[in-house]
Order: sequence, then C-alpha cells, then structure tokens
Amino acid sequence: MARILITSGPTRQYLDPVRYLTNASSGKMGAALSRAAAERGHDVIVISGPVAIDYPEASDVVQVVSTEEMLAAAETRFPDCDGLIGAAAPCDYRPVRVSKEKMAKTGEPLKLELIETPDIVASLAGKRRPDQWVVGFALETNDHRFRAITKAERKQCDLMVLNRPEAMNADANQVEILRRDGRLLSQFSGSKADCAQEILHWIDLELIAGT
Amino acid sequence: MARILITSGPTRQYLDPVRYLTNASSGKMGAALSRAAAERGHDVIVISGPVAIDYPEASDVVQVVSTEEMLAAAETRFPDCDGLIGAAAPCDYRPVRVSKEKMAKTGEPLKLELIETPDIVASLAGKRRPDQWVVGFALETNDHRFRAITKAERKQCDLMVLNRPEAMNADANQVEILRRDGRLLSQFSGSKADCAQEILHWIDLELIAGT
Repeated sequence: MARILITSGPTRQYLDPVRYLTNASSGKMGAALSRAAAERGHDVIVISGPVAIDYPEASDVVQVVSTEEMLAAAETRFPDCDGLIGAAAPCDYRPVRVSKEKMAKTGEPLKLELIETPDIVASLAGKRRPDQWVVGFALETNDHRFRAITKAERKQCDLMVLNRPEAMNADANQVEILRRDGRLLSQFSGSKADCAQEILHWIDLELIAGT
Repeated sequence: MARILITSGPTRQYLDPVRYLTNASSGKMGAALSRAAAERGHDVIVISGPVAIDYPEASDVVQVVSTEEMLAAAETRFPDCDGLIGAAAPCDYRPVRVSKEKMAKTGEPLKLELIETPDIVASLAGKRRPDQWVVGFALETNDHRFRAITKAERKQCDLMVLNRPEAMNADANQVEILRRDGRLLSQFSGSKADCAQEILHWIDLELIAGT
C-alpha cells in the first residue's frame, strides 16, 4: 500500500477579477485515477483545480484555483507521500500584470504579457527523496512520443502517460505509458476508468511492488 | 406569451488547441431565467456556451463555444423571437493569432495580442425590429450603476440587469434592474431562481404586457 498524491483538473490564471486563462481539463482522469488507486488499497490525496465533478469520498481533496496555489498545496503534502501522479493540467502561463478591477473595453487591442507558471511536476520531482516516485502526464498535438520522452527526462518522471487533446473533458481516453528510458510499457484505449486501472497497474508493477 | 431568446454561460476564445481565455460564468442565471420564463408560459430558446449544468427540458438549447459562434446562432434565431435576454458572459477578447498546434513552452515571456470580440447584445439590439425588446446584463467591479446605465444606452437595451462578480458560479445573486432612462425598477437579493422570477416579472410588466 502506498500514499499517493494526485493533482487533477485545470488551474486558472486571472487577468482581472473576471477574465482568466485556462484549459478544458475536466478532472475526470484525476477522479478515475483516485478511484482506481483507492480500489487497490492506496491512500489518496487529491489536489484539484476548479472542476464540476466529484472525487471519490474516500479521498482527501484540497481545492485550489491557480497554478501557484496547486504547487504550494502539493509541496506541503508531498513529503508525506510515496509518489505523485501529476494528472492536472495546470495553466502554464500567467499575466505579468493582474488588474484589481475589471478592465473596461476601450475598442483598442489589448497587449498581454504572459510568463510561465512554475512546473509542478518538475518542482516536486527535483526535490524528491530517493524513495519517492513521480508519474507525469503529457498532452501533445504533434511529435507526441518524442515530446513525451523529452518531458519525462526534463521533469525527472519515472513514468510518463501520454494522451491527446481529444481526451479533454471526454469520457474515453487513449494513453501510452512510457518509461523515462523511452520504453513503451502500454498502449491503451478505453474509458477513463479503464485507462486509470491500466496506469495504476503499471505504477504498482514498476514503482510500488519492489519497495 | 412571448418567444424569448436567452444567451447563457461563458464562451471560450482559444489561443491554441489547449489553452483558452474565458470567465467563471456557470450558466446558472441563464438556466434560472429559462425556467422562470417557461413557468410564465413563454417559449424559450437558449444559446449556451460550455457549462456543466442542465437547462430545463422544455427549452430549445443551442450549444456553442466561442463568442463568434454565439453571435451567429443568436442572429439566426432572433428574428423569430419577441425579445432577447443577454445573460451570457461572452469572452470579450480573442487572440489575434490562434496557433493550430499546442504552443511549446520556451522559457521566454509570451506576448499575446488580443482584440475585442463582437458585442452580441449590441449587435442584436442595433438590428432589431421596433416590436422586439432587449434586456442586457452588466457585471461591474466599480462605478456599478453608472457603468450599467452607460451600457444600457450604448447597447440599446430596454432594461439592464446589474450584478456583481461574486454572483459568478454562485447560487445566490444580488441584482438591480434598471431602465434605459436610468430609473431603478428593483433592487433584489436572493437565490438565482428568485432573482430570475423578479427579472421576468419586470420584463412581463415593462416589455411584454402592453404588446
């Protein structure tokens, strides 16, 4: 049995009190992973951005809005965990300036300067203890597998789950599970519940079984 | 009995296949208005952005994603309607350039040029027949009432409903119903269902009763 931290859903980066940048992540994959992990007897902590779905009651759920809040919550909880499944799709850019009031329209173009938000998976993986493992997710629209393996290396993930934009807010998914050395462990299509079972199967086999 | 077009929910303006600009509108107010209008015997057509809630089964619901799609759908349906309730919060800026592939992070700031999207309520109000009426919504963080009346004038709305950012994705609301001449018809706090009843009461009284 392991204690697993799962990040899930999108995050938001506000431009002003009303408008924000985000993505269509629904938290469905994170919820399916929480369920699959709990069914295998693992302890689950979920850190979730704003989503409209429910997580399994057994999980300890921490609600956050921004990427910075998700990172802070994850850094607080990760030391007590054996591993991280980074299934969230944190908003990876934020406006340099955030307006305190709703910006009034002027009829003129709006020039927005965005900077990258911290990379949650890379931050946690970079500071982990030798006994902790990290599973990342990659969502790419081209050069899928090459980019996923590069990401696994750069973010120091033990396993990388590669999926496609079509998976966002859908009930089905198509995943490839890759080891950091580039070896393809599994190619799997099915419901998000089935994909979650497959991912947990490989996490148990590759990362938990030997410990 | 009137045939009423209701726009509802947020819209999204994509930067690339994954990231988009939006706001926290949930469609709850639009759904409450649809229900209240149907209960008063009106025919309802809803044009909704992506939301996680259900509209009353009696309504004819058209699903859209972007502001341009919402405008096109509204322009098609409005000629058959007696009035418009513009309860949607359409994303009012869009990127000048939309990337076909997911933009890879470079470590560098991203300069985004945004331009205003078309104003749906103003577009429809500007082209309406003399027998058609238009109700707009304003959400302001400061100079609330002044800005709402200016909006009513500029967008040629017969009535303007003023609410606050706190209403977004909440179950309660606090509304002010203003006439275009600046007269305050009602100040009302309550559930979104109760606010919707109050708004429909004034629409019936001011815009439908005499026709």
